[in-house]
Amino acid sequence: MSRKTAMLHPDRLLPADPAVRATARALYERVADAPIVSPHGHCEASWFAEDAPFPNAADLLITPDHYVLRMLASQGVSYEALGVPRADGSRADVDPREAFRLFAAHYHLFAGTPSRVWLDHALHVVLGVPERLGPATADAVFDHVAAQLASPAFRPRALYERFGIEVLATTDNATDTLDAHRALKALAFGRIVPTFRPDALTDPLREDFAASMQRLEEQTGENVTDWSGLLKALRARRADFARLGATATDHGVLAPVTADLPGPACQALLDKARAGTITADEAALFQAQMLTEMAAMSVEDGLVMQIHAGSRRNYAPSVFARYGRDKGYDIPATVAWADGLKPLLDRFGFEPNLRMVLYTLDETAYGRELAPLAGAFPTVLLGAPWWFFDSPEGMRRYRSQVIETAGFHNTAGFVDDTRAFLSIPARHDMARRMDAGFLAGLVAEHQIGTDEAFALIGELAGGLARRAYRTGTGQAAPGSDRATA
Amino acid sequence: MSRKTAMLHPDRLLPADPAVRATARALYERVADAPIVSPHGHCEASWFAEDAPFPNAADLLITPDHYVLRMLASQGVSYEALGVPRADGSRADVDPREAFRLFAAHYHLFAGTPSRVWLDHALHVVLGVPERLGPATADAVFDHVAAQLASPAFRPRALYERFGIEVLATTDNATDTLDAHRALKALAFGRIVPTFRPDALTDPLREDFAASMQRLEEQTGENVTDWSGLLKALRARRADFARLGATATDHGVLAPVTADLPGPACQALLDKARAGTITADEAALFQAQMLTEMAAMSVEDGLVMQIHAGSRRNYAPSVFARYGRDKGYDIPATVAWADGLKPLLDRFGFEPNLRMVLYTLDETAYGRELAPLAGAFPTVLLGAPWWFFDSPEGMRRYRSQVIETAGFHNTAGFVDDTRAFLSIPARHDMARRMDAGFLAGLVAEHQIGTDEAFALIGELAGGLARRAYRTGTGQAAPGSDRATA
Amino acid sequence: MSRKTAMLHPDRLLPADPAVRATARALYERVADAPIVSPHGHCEASWFAEDAPFPNAADLLITPDHYVLRMLASQGVSYEALGVPRADGSRADVDPREAFRLFAAHYHLFAGTPSRVWLDHALHVVLGVPERLGPATADAVFDHVAAQLASPAFRPRALYERFGIEVLATTDNATDTLDAHRALKALAFGRIVPTFRPDALTDPLREDFAASMQRLEEQTGENVTDWSGLLKALRARRADFARLGATATDHGVLAPVTADLPGPACQALLDKARAGTITADEAALFQAQMLTEMAAMSVEDGLVMQIHAGSRRNYAPSVFARYGRDKGYDIPATVAWADGLKPLLDRFGFEPNLRMVLYTLDETAYGRELAPLAGAFPTVLLGAPWWFFDSPEGMRRYRSQVIETAGFHNTAGFVDDTRAFLSIPARHDMARRMDAGFLAGLVAEHQIGTDEAFALIGELAGGLARRAYRTGTGQAAPGSDRATA
Repeated sequence: MSRKTAMLHPDRLLPADPAVRATARALYERVADAPIVSPHGHCEASWFAEDAPFPNAADLLITPDHYVLRMLASQGVSYEALGVPRADGSRADVDPREAFRLFAAHYHLFAGTPSRVWLDHALHVVLGVPERLGPATADAVFDHVAAQLASPAFRPRALYERFGIEVLATTDNATDTLDAHRALKALAFGRIVPTFRPDALTDPLREDFAASMQRLEEQTGENVTDWSGLLKALRARRADFARLGATATDHGVLAPVTADLPGPACQALLDKARAGTITADEAALFQAQMLTEMAAMSVEDGLVMQIHAGSRRNYAPSVFARYGRDKGYDIPATVAWADGLKPLLDRFGFEPNLRMVLYTLDETAYGRELAPLAGAFPTVLLGAPWWFFDSPEGMRRYRSQVIETAGFHNTAGFVDDTRAFLSIPARHDMARRMDAGFLAGLVAEHQIGTDEAFALIGELAGGLARRAYRTGTGQAAPGSDRATA
Repeated sequence: MSRKTAMLHPDRLLPADPAVRATARALYERVADAPIVSPHGHCEASWFAEDAPFPNAADLLITPDHYVLRMLASQGVSYEALGVPRADGSRADVDPREAFRLFAAHYHLFAGTPSRVWLDHALHVVLGVPERLGPATADAVFDHVAAQLASPAFRPRALYERFGIEVLATTDNATDTLDAHRALKALAFGRIVPTFRPDALTDPLREDFAASMQRLEEQTGENVTDWSGLLKALRARRADFARLGATATDHGVLAPVTADLPGPACQALLDKARAGTITADEAALFQAQMLTEMAAMSVEDGLVMQIHAGSRRNYAPSVFARYGRDKGYDIPATVAWADGLKPLLDRFGFEPNLRMVLYTLDETAYGRELAPLAGAFPTVLLGAPWWFFDSPEGMRRYRSQVIETAGFHNTAGFVDDTRAFLSIPARHDMARRMDAGFLAGLVAEHQIGTDEAFALIGELAGGLARRAYRTGTGQAAPGSDRATA
Repeated sequence: MSRKTAMLHPDRLLPADPAVRATARALYERVADAPIVSPHGHCEASWFAEDAPFPNAADLLITPDHYVLRMLASQGVSYEALGVPRADGSRADVDPREAFRLFAAHYHLFAGTPSRVWLDHALHVVLGVPERLGPATADAVFDHVAAQLASPAFRPRALYERFGIEVLATTDNATDTLDAHRALKALAFGRIVPTFRPDALTDPLREDFAASMQRLEEQTGENVTDWSGLLKALRARRADFARLGATATDHGVLAPVTADLPGPACQALLDKARAGTITADEAALFQAQMLTEMAAMSVEDGLVMQIHAGSRRNYAPSVFARYGRDKGYDIPATVAWADGLKPLLDRFGFEPNLRMVLYTLDETAYGRELAPLAGAFPTVLLGAPWWFFDSPEGMRRYRSQVIETAGFHNTAGFVDDTRAFLSIPARHDMARRMDAGFLAGLVAEHQIGTDEAFALIGELAGGLARRAYRTGTGQAAPGSDRATA
């Protein structure tokens, strides 16, 4: 994809010092157009299977983006005025142009935020908007975007090609039909793979736990009221995902607690979970045991196990009640990684076929727990700075606190983790620029040589992610994917 | 106020890189002489009502400044030798000149601390001292200061004018007579407003709780043994403060825990508190409920609610017993903001008239909890880096961890929060320099344009604080004070 | 020691900005060849007493270095393949040359880590290796090192002299015979002093607690089943250490909890500890009380009390079982300093003869608890960034979070804390370069003058450590060792 535009400075996000910037620019240029490896994110396979045009600038850039929504709400803009869809499927009758004007009138709020960088990139680089967004240009930008979206060049599949995506992973409930993925396979389009996310089956307190268990039983024919039947059913679904190209699972937890219980204790917890009589402590223990079971299955099938921990979901009950999940009111929590993972690591920490990638919303754990764990256990890699920390300063803190203890090769490379498809190139571009700047700083301080920096920028821009997520061959390749000299 | 002196480099605290410094200097120059907005601090209204001269350099710069005292004590200087007033009102018979010599002999200890920056500014810019303070110059500096303090130009009111103060808020017990504020109003001098701080009424374990309740009853004529009577009395006092210009309340707590209890439970806690039979847990619950009540009253009367959390007060019992509060032995604690505030935010988080400004001594909460809360709730703003973190590096960490998630407009601007009157210009000057440097960095990395940086420096140097504290009109102006394009 | 080599850039680790670098270089040059003050570390006195040659490059640089081992293990290299000695004393029959080849093949893993800096310095500056280590040069480097180690110039005593060591402290069990120290004293070689570390006597849950108590009884002739007898025995051993030059004690704890119990309660805990019936909570209380007793003895004998807190030891049970302690699987934990130390500080916080140096693996405590404590209590100094944080970025975070609150003079200077003897010059060199860079930054921002920076670099490169550890005279010198103007 052409990434040049007169609207954005070619040296944006590179270090200010002229000598360091020159090195950073050379490093960035080396990978600026490298293929995008996106092994974790929240795009929908159906977008590509159906290839329908995106609707309009407001429904493309505002209402689905919880980063944008929460910032507008924080300054008193109501979700109703923006036409945010409600949990019940209804939505206020808002003209998308009016919503976009409201957004444009508040665009100054994003100064200094990564959303601003992503949105500017989407507007100017992807959509070719020739002027800065603001109150005075809202209508012109809206119209320009409308014209672009009407063109075949801006359909999902065309953009996928233009973005230079090598692999794109979606994130899917364990009981998803995967119909869209099947359709894509039939089309032989691109490489869009599912990711197995069993949260609705592992957390008995979720409102959709019972229904998900029911569905799992139907899909697999296993008796999931029986502990060993449940494990069999999960194994079967994992295999279904792997057949459609999945190389990873994903586990979203508030706390990454694990357990290693004997079978009868597991059965007892399952009984209570199914009966709906489980206590909060027991539910946490069930979830902890399930994480360990997932690790056990990863040892068998080689699916890379992602753990995303520390998000206190749906903190504002009024927003959750009216608009549902993922609307900007998730607040990070402290995370006790080392204590939580110990039972799992005691059992599987040195299994050659296990690969865990850890993502945290508690940055204090970077230096204190995560880098030491990733820098010692062959099964542990540290994922990229996540969510609120997927930002220039977030990346700086991550590099500052992680690399000296874990090295580069125990990190899992960049993932964009987005449901905002148009922001994918922007996010990888930001990471590549920040990584180039970080490496240039090491070169400037003579900690590494220029030759090493050029080798490492390639790793950071794709190589590490390919190996971490085992996407190199499309096959889980146990043991064959460690760094070599 | 003239801020030039040959003793201090004009580019102090600006970024080292020449190109970035040039931008920072231009930004700083734009606001260097802007009026001082000081909506939170600990000066005394009586200083200005009485306008008596300050006594001498030791009692001006050393004994009232707990930053200075603790540093001297940390290297073995005793409070007795400095003549620090004791809790019982007595003090060692120490010649102020001797105390000042002792201070000067240890002035090297402050290298690299903000106290050094503030003291140098007070000495050279405010007091016009023409030489560096040190053992050899102690007497000369002491004499120079004495001569200045004897002049009318160094009386409190003259300095207030010279400093260019637009508004100065004091912090006052809820049961304060506010006589000095009344006197100032009669004098029509300046704009010095009280702040309603009810800590002695909301924490039943304080030694002055019973006496404060008694006083509240006398002042308001309400029956404060009755829960609804207590609330009425508090409302009445808030109105008294507002009539004298208050736009804010202030709440100092170790942990920002809130509660939302039914009336009978509140009455039961109050009964035990008044009877002196309340347990520590119950006292914490009482305090938590009171925070929520204060929010409810802010919804009614529009007073901005400040919460200062995380100070473990009076950590050294021997110092507290001999010298009392605020003597340098308060040690920060971890703060669980998101859990603590949830009951309050569940009830009032989207109230258009509520405004909360949060101050933390636990910096780990910036990125993990505070910026996400301020960046989502329209009622929450994040206060400036506080106390130990009101410093160049503290400001850098704050900007690095807050802005990307909350943006600039969900921060409350700078407050000097000081009882060291002579340090007020120094503190605002430091903040303006650091903000100019931060913005210049964003410009240098092409994250914002120069035009945006010039707009933002004005916000940071006064605009945000005016809006956050609703001082623009001297009136709480519900709903009218959000950022607009 | 000549520190020049064409293999390493003379400006390595200095700031990138040319003007700042020039100042930093001048500051660094001032102390580059200053004597090495090493008052805390883990070298063995016997190396110098026996002065035997080091065996080979693998057993010198790889198998004893847990930083190196864990990084190799994290990428799948087994300890067996490296010939790491097992806990039972056996080891795999591995050719050291093969182990070194394996290391060389993975040397790229260390890019960006402090191990890389230390290893490069040891190879090129200390050992004179003329080429970069990598797979292609493994054999040549191995042979070069072998040739060097065979020469008398690379014996321990010769290197001690060449490194310019002024004082080197070892760390020794409280019941150590100290024979090697006695031999060194007889030889009148150098200044190698023991440090009293009683962990095996203060933690009743250690496997060697009973044996250590038995040994203590034999060594001292005191009845250590009696609380006062135990204290007498500990006093006697401390005196033995002091006679051999010790100026400090060392205490390794997960949590720095202290207690101040009455005698009968202490006796009861000791009874249970000796009987092996003590619970985990009681054992923690025993350990807490022992820390306070150690402080009481330091008040008497002037030994400086070091506390190293926050290491969750032996996190991987399989590694511990097979290879024993200190093999790279210690993971930091959160540390509650202010709560933990309160009982001790309530009692001894202002004792003129007490000196405590605190080391943390929880960096969040720097600004929140440790700098405020060190910046207020005359008995508390903050130790250098430790272990994972003994690194360029770790030092930057430490300076950024500590100095503004505690000043330079409440920090204890640099300690290398290493068992890798050849890394000692590298570690001090890194610290001196980073400190020069930090001071140059303060000069560039006009926070301190150049004259102050030159005075401070001398303090940071040795003066602070000498005073903190009272090594100036070889005698604990109560009260005489505070900073003076």
